[in-house]
Amino acid sequence: MTDDHADIALDPETRLAHDDHDALRLWLRMLTCTMLVERHIRARLKGRFGMSLPRFDLMAQLERAKDGLRMSELSRRLMVSGGNVTSLVDQLVRDGLVERRDVPGDRRAFAVCLTPRGREAFLAMAREHEAWIVELTGGLARSDRDRLHQLLGRFKRSLPAP
Amino acid sequence: MTDDHADIALDPETRLAHDDHDALRLWLRMLTCTMLVERHIRARLKGRFGMSLPRFDLMAQLERAKDGLRMSELSRRLMVSGGNVTSLVDQLVRDGLVERRDVPGDRRAFAVCLTPRGREAFLAMAREHEAWIVELTGGLARSDRDRLHQLLGRFKRSLPAP
Repeated sequence: MTDDHADIALDPETRLAHDDHDALRLWLRMLTCTMLVERHIRARLKGRFGMSLPRFDLMAQLERAKDGLRMSELSRRLMVSGGNVTSLVDQLVRDGLVERRDVPGDRRAFAVCLTPRGREAFLAMAREHEAWIVELTGGLARSDRDRLHQLLGRFKRSLPAP
Repeated sequence: MTDDHADIALDPETRLAHDDHDALRLWLRMLTCTMLVERHIRARLKGRFGMSLPRFDLMAQLERAKDGLRMSELSRRLMVSGGNVTSLVDQLVRDGLVERRDVPGDRRAFAVCLTPRGREAFLAMAREHEAWIVELTGGLARSDRDRLHQLLGRFKRSLPAP
């Protein structure tokens, strides 16, 4: 009988196939973790605040932008299409949580901003959201969380430009 | 002047706030990595095959299910709503890549299956998809990839049931 490990070491194509498989397993595991956390967050935002995750994400972007954001910028940051951003903004305007404002010096453009009520509602949701994330990541030892953060940082920096 | 670190160590609330911040930073970094990889994959699937990521993901599920999958099961596995699955399946049926088949013994149900052409098209896409993932994860050292895979496994197991 031959030694399987020796065979693999001598066959670059087998090694490559093995590496391919590992890369795919790593990616699918990362995707699964992200989707599992998102599923929890989605269910809690809906159950606790009647809020969808895309609308929450949009409000989070606006909270960090004191002068509001143009639609094109919102679309870019949220990585969703212009049509989808329009639909999200329309819903939030209807609920009185965001508003469209003219952009000084550009008569054709407008910026989307949180209303005072929107900001208050967002901050209340953000506090709970943060507590959920603390809970969802809390099953991992502190040292593992630090190491994971560091490795994901390396991974992020290693990715090619979009 | 007081020693800031000593103050923090004496104040559990400050420590908690610090932990909260770390948990959120970890989660946002994981989400960003996932979204950046997905953006590459999305653009390449579209450019190379004119295929959307949700349709590719649906075909990937069917490729692993020799007897096809019911709509409810597809919806569960892909974590998308029933209406969205119906729309994806309709598009793929129109392109001749999947078909609906009766389920023996259940006159009201049907299973969605890949057609032979669909299977062939999927396998060609899957080969390139795997090569893209190898490329996208290849900037990370082998030991870092192994460690990341291991830590994500621990994180996945530590998550509460949905």
